[in-house]
Amino acid sequence: MPMHDRVLMGPGPSNPYPEVMLALARPVVGHLDPDFLTLLDETCDRLRAVFRTSNVLTLPVSGTGSAGMETAFVNLVGPGDTVVVGVNGLFGERMFDVATRCGADVVRVDEEWGRAIDPQRLLNAHPDPKVIAVVHAETSTGVANPIQELGEGKGDALLLVDCVTSLGGIQVEVDAWGIDVAYAGTQKCLGVPPGLAPLTVNERARERFVSRPQSWYFDLSMISEYVGAARKYHHTAPVTMIYALHAGLGVVLDEGLDACWARHEACGRALQRGLEKLGFRLFAEEGHRLPELTTVWLPPGLDDADTRRTLLQHYGVEVGGGVGEFAGKVWRIGCMGHTARPRNVTLLLGALEELLAQ
Amino acid sequence: MPMHDRVLMGPGPSNPYPEVMLALARPVVGHLDPDFLTLLDETCDRLRAVFRTSNVLTLPVSGTGSAGMETAFVNLVGPGDTVVVGVNGLFGERMFDVATRCGADVVRVDEEWGRAIDPQRLLNAHPDPKVIAVVHAETSTGVANPIQELGEGKGDALLLVDCVTSLGGIQVEVDAWGIDVAYAGTQKCLGVPPGLAPLTVNERARERFVSRPQSWYFDLSMISEYVGAARKYHHTAPVTMIYALHAGLGVVLDEGLDACWARHEACGRALQRGLEKLGFRLFAEEGHRLPELTTVWLPPGLDDADTRRTLLQHYGVEVGGGVGEFAGKVWRIGCMGHTARPRNVTLLLGALEELLAQ
Repeated sequence: MPMHDRVLMGPGPSNPYPEVMLALARPVVGHLDPDFLTLLDETCDRLRAVFRTSNVLTLPVSGTGSAGMETAFVNLVGPGDTVVVGVNGLFGERMFDVATRCGADVVRVDEEWGRAIDPQRLLNAHPDPKVIAVVHAETSTGVANPIQELGEGKGDALLLVDCVTSLGGIQVEVDAWGIDVAYAGTQKCLGVPPGLAPLTVNERARERFVSRPQSWYFDLSMISEYVGAARKYHHTAPVTMIYALHAGLGVVLDEGLDACWARHEACGRALQRGLEKLGFRLFAEEGHRLPELTTVWLPPGLDDADTRRTLLQHYGVEVGGGVGEFAGKVWRIGCMGHTARPRNVTLLLGALEELLAQ
Repeated sequence: MPMHDRVLMGPGPSNPYPEVMLALARPVVGHLDPDFLTLLDETCDRLRAVFRTSNVLTLPVSGTGSAGMETAFVNLVGPGDTVVVGVNGLFGERMFDVATRCGADVVRVDEEWGRAIDPQRLLNAHPDPKVIAVVHAETSTGVANPIQELGEGKGDALLLVDCVTSLGGIQVEVDAWGIDVAYAGTQKCLGVPPGLAPLTVNERARERFVSRPQSWYFDLSMISEYVGAARKYHHTAPVTMIYALHAGLGVVLDEGLDACWARHEACGRALQRGLEKLGFRLFAEEGHRLPELTTVWLPPGLDDADTRRTLLQHYGVEVGGGVGEFAGKVWRIGCMGHTARPRNVTLLLGALEELLAQ
């Protein structure tokens, strides 16, 4: 079996921080071991710092980012509840799918892929929804949707935000922006392998939980009895992945959130400028372009699959293809977590320049 | 933060194999990287070998063992479906809970904790259930429930078996025993950290999947399009944990399944004999005692919490407490995966002898 290392510039996973790779080697202990519980508590504290929240119910869900999405919905949404969902990409579509499986009456607010959703359209979509749900950073299009205005105008609704590709990469302010429920993934801007979904829920949302979620595995009331002081067994915590998350959050917080966002910003904008110089046209709407995930139209004559294969095999660099109708036409280039370093931007631009010159 | 290593003789996690710890350090690559897909395919092949099945739909679910349980139920069981569930421990109770959340009409077959469930009682519980569900190795009691007779007598019903604590530790024969759906965990007899749920489903069960499971994350029809040839993105595979599982299965298959079962048998029986000599009385019914998970009544005068704390702090050995009404009265002692070595049996018996002599 070959063992290649890659510069991971796709839409995720990103390259883990070296400290995270070391943490994976930490001896496995029991999920009720005092050492582990101390580390778990510290992990939750670090998550609060990164989410910018004081929410008690803040924890890593034992699944990937999409498990965070499902956890958020199944605990909040029951049959007949009205949910407004913004859909301008694959992950908005996924929210729609998950909400309907909870039996919700879903009001879709569609926007063209590549454009941001006007928050007023979400606020005006229904007079009294239980939940307004939107993706902060759309990994399928590279678009940042505005969040702050939703928190200000939400009224009685609960604001549910997908922060999978935003947390750690751009500003996320759970408390200050009035976000009631947010979830993320580990494998994007936190620089940790995929496998966990950081999640935070405020008391306002907790009071409106459905009485018995359709999912046992994602039942937050039960899970919180283990993560909280009761330490009541629910399921066996994935200890090794929590070691990794603990370490990744440590790296981010040691650097400082502002510095970490600035690093993502600097790398992403340098990449975008460089790609435009090489003849790529940016896909996402100006003013709403994520720095950590860049989407570009391929220049005429550049073959998608061939070029990505050469990038992977000759340069050891992964970039991502487009999704849905944009497959073969658009690339998604991530610069997240430990990947968000100037050297990786320089490498990719240099490699593309060589390939375009051939 | 302290970093203690432990001899993990609780009900799970067990100590991972050294090869598994090395595999965790493998460079993270993308979930669509050709190298990763080759490794994923090989992991699924190894799972087939360990489950003793030729089922195409055999894969690691991206969650812990209980996620495997939920995956099995949500894909098979919809509102109004009749499900017979055997309940003689915590995990049978969990099956009951999960099945009712799917809207099933559940027929419970209860048995005293510590005793096995007579398969005829399960077969006679309902004339035409869609599913008969039972736990093979009850981690809460140390009891092995008979499975083979259920496969022979199930008729049109689907046989759903929890193999979390049996797979790799005692004989499991998915195809030969007529098991339609089985799931397991990584952190027991496979010697891998917690975080994934191996699962296998035969064509007979696949044909009777509900049309749209209430869970998006655990929707096997969608997941199989990624694990299968289509390679269609569903969620980001937890690559590092799959490396670990791949390595753990490699250790088990290199040793040989028969040899691996024999090692668990030898260690478990030696432990049980030794514990009886020390004055512990075995909890599980004779003839149905698991070798990999031993349950004992504490001898009079031995304090549960104090003794377990001393074992952990002075000897670095974890054993597990009892569950429910048996908390404080019963211990659960695992000898699973890499923990299932004679040296660990000798160590624990020696430590207990010292403590009992004080």
